[in-house]
Amino acid sequence: MHNKKILLARRPQGMVEAGDFSMVEEPLPDVKDGQLLVHNQFISLDPAMRGWMNEGTTYIKGVAIGEVMRAFSAGIVVESRHPQFTKGDAVQGLLGAQQYCISNGEGLVKVNASLAPLSWHLGLLGMPGLTAYFGLLDKGKPMPGETVLISAAAGMIGSLAGQIAKIKGCNVIGIAGGPDKCKYLKEELGFDAAIDYKQKQVAADIKAAAPQGVHIYFDNVGGEILDAALLNLATGARVVICGAISQYNDAGFSGLKNYMKIVTARGTLTGIIVLDYFSRATEAVSHISQWVKEGKIKYREHVVNGLEHFTEALQMLFNGENQGKLILATSPS
Amino acid sequence: MHNKKILLARRPQGMVEAGDFSMVEEPLPDVKDGQLLVHNQFISLDPAMRGWMNEGTTYIKGVAIGEVMRAFSAGIVVESRHPQFTKGDAVQGLLGAQQYCISNGEGLVKVNASLAPLSWHLGLLGMPGLTAYFGLLDKGKPMPGETVLISAAAGMIGSLAGQIAKIKGCNVIGIAGGPDKCKYLKEELGFDAAIDYKQKQVAADIKAAAPQGVHIYFDNVGGEILDAALLNLATGARVVICGAISQYNDAGFSGLKNYMKIVTARGTLTGIIVLDYFSRATEAVSHISQWVKEGKIKYREHVVNGLEHFTEALQMLFNGENQGKLILATSPS
Repeated sequence: MHNKKILLARRPQGMVEAGDFSMVEEPLPDVKDGQLLVHNQFISLDPAMRGWMNEGTTYIKGVAIGEVMRAFSAGIVVESRHPQFTKGDAVQGLLGAQQYCISNGEGLVKVNASLAPLSWHLGLLGMPGLTAYFGLLDKGKPMPGETVLISAAAGMIGSLAGQIAKIKGCNVIGIAGGPDKCKYLKEELGFDAAIDYKQKQVAADIKAAAPQGVHIYFDNVGGEILDAALLNLATGARVVICGAISQYNDAGFSGLKNYMKIVTARGTLTGIIVLDYFSRATEAVSHISQWVKEGKIKYREHVVNGLEHFTEALQMLFNGENQGKLILATSPS
Repeated sequence: MHNKKILLARRPQGMVEAGDFSMVEEPLPDVKDGQLLVHNQFISLDPAMRGWMNEGTTYIKGVAIGEVMRAFSAGIVVESRHPQFTKGDAVQGLLGAQQYCISNGEGLVKVNASLAPLSWHLGLLGMPGLTAYFGLLDKGKPMPGETVLISAAAGMIGSLAGQIAKIKGCNVIGIAGGPDKCKYLKEELGFDAAIDYKQKQVAADIKAAAPQGVHIYFDNVGGEILDAALLNLATGARVVICGAISQYNDAGFSGLKNYMKIVTARGTLTGIIVLDYFSRATEAVSHISQWVKEGKIKYREHVVNGLEHFTEALQMLFNGENQGKLILATSPS
């Protein structure tokens, strides 16, 4: 059996481009005792992947040149010599950007495919869902009536965090690019206000939408928008950083200018590393599933077909062109 | 009776300079019912004063042009028509950069002059002392064996925070300017290591002194040294910002580059605003006094004589030239 896989060919400078990755096809080795073979059907494209392409170690080691690009994938076990997995199991984990993965089971999670479509376990019920859930609730600690500001609010994590904030009784303001996304936030997701960052007056728009200041800023982009949010913190504000798409790609980012506003607002800045919340995944999945059933949470996916479109799909993600959670299906549909 | 006072003449650009302040002498009005007259003997020169010279409101309103420069001062009540104060009381509060102050008693604190010299109530037992005490203990929450890094460590707040961290069983590293200050930290104050920032390899020096990373960074300077500290955080690090001398004066600071390290270290960044701890002053004063008696805390003052030297004394503070807590005595000695 053959396996197609995406390798990191060189370290991207700024935005990812053609040539940063290569696709190779090679025979699969045999499955040994204690291993299992997964057929990856869906690959999740997430902002955090940009950080993984860098050299060095942050919260997780960078991908080596020539190695399969790290990615969360969901698939079906097609062969198992592992005691805890059976052929036909639906699983999810860091299986990489490839069609097949031989795993020793470490970090692999069985998912309840009856709860939702398999690909949803890479988004709403997967890592991004957990990030939104624990980032907002565990780090942000929203109280009813507080104002929650969210950047990249039309994205997977931002749109979920905003909807959970609405469930918790908050006043929710989303920042997104363009009138269509802003309309989506207000009319489809029930946000109280939406700010189009392409109008280039983000700080003033935040001030107008949140004259009493922002109690929680849930940051998905970093850089200049983070700086604008810092100018509008309410007393006791919590800034929760969850990835930083703009900074990941922007080698020329000059630095955060307004960080002293955290001090003068008696605020805190912290981050969410979703890996730390794996042990509490069930809590998030059961709450989110319940909210979906009750019609309180809306979810949409943007599926790109074909492993060979890996780089273009990533560029779409970093340019904010996707409409909903971006998923790469390994086989053309 | 005449009063000499220092007025804010214009808003400083960057470092304070001659011309930013003017000294005027004018007759004192009569003391009315509910008021008291304090003869300020000592004026405290503190980094926070640089922020107060700016327009606008942060945690406290900026000083208006033509107004007496805001300052903590300590003095003796020379006349009282206020029920809670008596002639001869030793007091401390925001009495301004002037020889005399007519007060309605608001924010004025009686001090126990038998506990320590009057001027100490502006430093070790005053706002800077409270800042070090609560910044380290309440915000930093040190645990025995943790590594605590402190910038401006030979200054009033830094040297006290470092000595308290030693009392709490921490490994303490100080950053200061020049070999004399570094020697003072290690040989006089018992710090475990000292880094001379003038050697311009702060990040590497921190890494060498704290190979396991920094658990608490107590920041008194901001800017590039803060950025260097962020590169060396241990997991769960607490960054406590207490003023930011370098940034206050540096209109050209390009911004904090390494703030994402707070996220990847699962850390937090927060600040200490000492005004929030006034109600707990007694707790800090009694602990610090006790430690001084036990010989566990050393303290030194740098007294400049004469109100007319206000600007030079402030420049000395911002250039780090003072040896110990900087105090301006209102009358030439």
